[in-house]
Amino acid sequence: SRRYTITLLPGDGIGPEVISVAKNALQLAGSLEGIEFGFKEMPVGGAALDLTGVPLPEETLSAAKKSDAVLLGAIGGYKWDNNEKHLKPETGLLQLRAGLKVFANLRPASVLSQLVDASTLKKEVAEGVDLMVVRELTGGIYFGKPRGFGSNENGEEIGFNTEVYATYEIDRIARIAFETAQKRRGKLCSVDKANVLEASMLWRKRVMAIASEYPDVELSHMYVDNAAMQLVRNPKQFDTIVTNNIFGDILSDEASMITGSIGMLPSASLGEAGPGLFEPIHGSAPDIAGQDKANPLATVLSAAMLLKYGLGEEKAAQRIETAVLDTLNRGFRTGDIYSESEGNKLVGCKEMGKELVKSI
Amino acid sequence: SRRYTITLLPGDGIGPEVISVAKNALQLAGSLEGIEFGFKEMPVGGAALDLTGVPLPEETLSAAKKSDAVLLGAIGGYKWDNNEKHLKPETGLLQLRAGLKVFANLRPASVLSQLVDASTLKKEVAEGVDLMVVRELTGGIYFGKPRGFGSNENGEEIGFNTEVYATYEIDRIARIAFETAQKRRGKLCSVDKANVLEASMLWRKRVMAIASEYPDVELSHMYVDNAAMQLVRNPKQFDTIVTNNIFGDILSDEASMITGSIGMLPSASLGEAGPGLFEPIHGSAPDIAGQDKANPLATVLSAAMLLKYGLGEEKAAQRIETAVLDTLNRGFRTGDIYSESEGNKLVGCKEMGKELVKSI
Ligand SMILES: CC(C)[C@H](C(=O)O)[C@@H](O)C(=O)O
Ligand SMILES: CC(C)[C@H](C(=O)O)[C@@H](O)C(=O)O
Repeated sequence: SRRYTITLLPGDGIGPEVISVAKNALQLAGSLEGIEFGFKEMPVGGAALDLTGVPLPEETLSAAKKSDAVLLGAIGGYKWDNNEKHLKPETGLLQLRAGLKVFANLRPASVLSQLVDASTLKKEVAEGVDLMVVRELTGGIYFGKPRGFGSNENGEEIGFNTEVYATYEIDRIARIAFETAQKRRGKLCSVDKANVLEASMLWRKRVMAIASEYPDVELSHMYVDNAAMQLVRNPKQFDTIVTNNIFGDILSDEASMITGSIGMLPSASLGEAGPGLFEPIHGSAPDIAGQDKANPLATVLSAAMLLKYGLGEEKAAQRIETAVLDTLNRGFRTGDIYSESEGNKLVGCKEMGKELVKSI
Repeated sequence: SRRYTITLLPGDGIGPEVISVAKNALQLAGSLEGIEFGFKEMPVGGAALDLTGVPLPEETLSAAKKSDAVLLGAIGGYKWDNNEKHLKPETGLLQLRAGLKVFANLRPASVLSQLVDASTLKKEVAEGVDLMVVRELTGGIYFGKPRGFGSNENGEEIGFNTEVYATYEIDRIARIAFETAQKRRGKLCSVDKANVLEASMLWRKRVMAIASEYPDVELSHMYVDNAAMQLVRNPKQFDTIVTNNIFGDILSDEASMITGSIGMLPSASLGEAGPGLFEPIHGSAPDIAGQDKANPLATVLSAAMLLKYGLGEEKAAQRIETAVLDTLNRGFRTGDIYSESEGNKLVGCKEMGKELVKSI
């Protein structure tokens, strides 16, 4: 039987609750496919700050690096909101992404027919949306230097950051995006602000250059302001979107809200080699933490992405995905996706986990 | 009688068509309030490129500076899309904003009850949305230095831009935003990415400092990714939003699409002194240019903002705004806002202009 080591990073808020459900799902789906997991739980974010004084302890990063894949719950909370930058939970997450060199962040956003009513968009606009945002994750303005505080000619305080991309950074994310599009409907839209920013002009130039390696993918370009509009106007026009770190942050959240069920959406962050990082796209939801109200399905689906993209265990991944649909079909809903309709049953995080296990 | 000089910048695409309607509206509403206008038409954008080789000729900028207000149609088109940066129509627009020092861009987005069906959002979500985005317009990553192309340690090509704000730039846009909120429902939401970017940390610090001058305004802060989601989830939660240049570019376009009638939305760009710049937020729509299909009402409403914010002529502004509503109430619709329903009449740009004149 195949054996994998998984680093579990529950993190903050609802993180521990949803990770616990996802762990059970992994274990069961794995055992049915002859896979054995060794789990190692480590602190990150606010939990690590409280325990060790830093948001990403060295032990956590080195355990993560040594494992076959990393599953993260969520990080952050009011308690640490006013911390200095190097003591913010978010900084731990950025350090983890950089430390694992996971430059490609895949964020699917699709509207399940079972949940189409949860969208704030009209049914005919939301129905059938199925897109994937490929976000560059370890470059751009998040990590660019110089950055910091200083003063201008008049002695006034300034704050500054650098948006910067090198060709190799654009080329490798473009390749992932073209390959993703190839496996989907063959359409890639690259989003930039090449009418204003030099960093975007280089982005567009390199994406166009890489396109020649993928003649079967239909490439288009869109300015980021227009993309933010088009996601609202007609999200169905998109298949795969590729964009930089900050635009990807904004657009993938917008896209996820368009589905109306952000509690359902997983993500995968992949590098050239080494373990991938898998996490739900929702946050730590401190307002409902510890109340057994969280929707664990985004983390469960992240575990499915872990099996598929992280370990190449397609069959076990399929088991989990099918079980999620089956659980929804049997009417089980956490609060965030609940709507009163025949056969729908409002459940908590734990009960959702139990029903899911039945479905697997 | 009062006399004002207005610089008209028709620009490209549908620009000339919509400016012509707005000019008539200004003239008539003005004459009814004892105002005389002297109009001076000058080239900008692609039109200026074709005529003079640059996207903002000196004569255009100096005429604009000498006038009491500037009304712009739209700029850009396929023809110039692959021009080098200093020969792009967009560069002319950025030079115009910088030259006029109009650092505060006000972009209202409201859903008119007559047009609620045009939104892709569900009626109960879209109905009653009435928000104003106050976007910083002459700073940040649009203008920050250093910028350009170069190479990294490994000799690879890089493209880079600088996101930078100084305290005085944040303070003055914050004051405009607080004053805008005061005249509206007294709620201001400042949008940033202060969990990651130093430029945003300074932004948040200064907005909080300026807040003490406006104790009657309720201030909140939101990360830009969350704001992109909340605009889709529940746009009614917003009154006034203040944000930097690039986030404002993205979020104001998203907000405008939420109303479903981007052909209706005006904008005003104001400086400390000197003429303001008024323009519709839609683009030059080259696909329908010259076909008498454009919706002139965004430019007409920009002319109303010109009267109100640019010249302090509230009554004449009111006349135009009322006339727009009256024309809609009488059922006249251009293609972009047309929906088949009793009493609606599909009209072109010119006919919409004629009906508007009747209403004034
Ligand atoms: C928490 C924050 C640093 C992070 C980001 O901006 O990348 C989050 O918004 C995300 O998208 O995963
Ligand atoms: C045309 C472009 C340079 C401009 C901008 O990015 O500011 C436009 O998108 C706008 O919002 O007015």
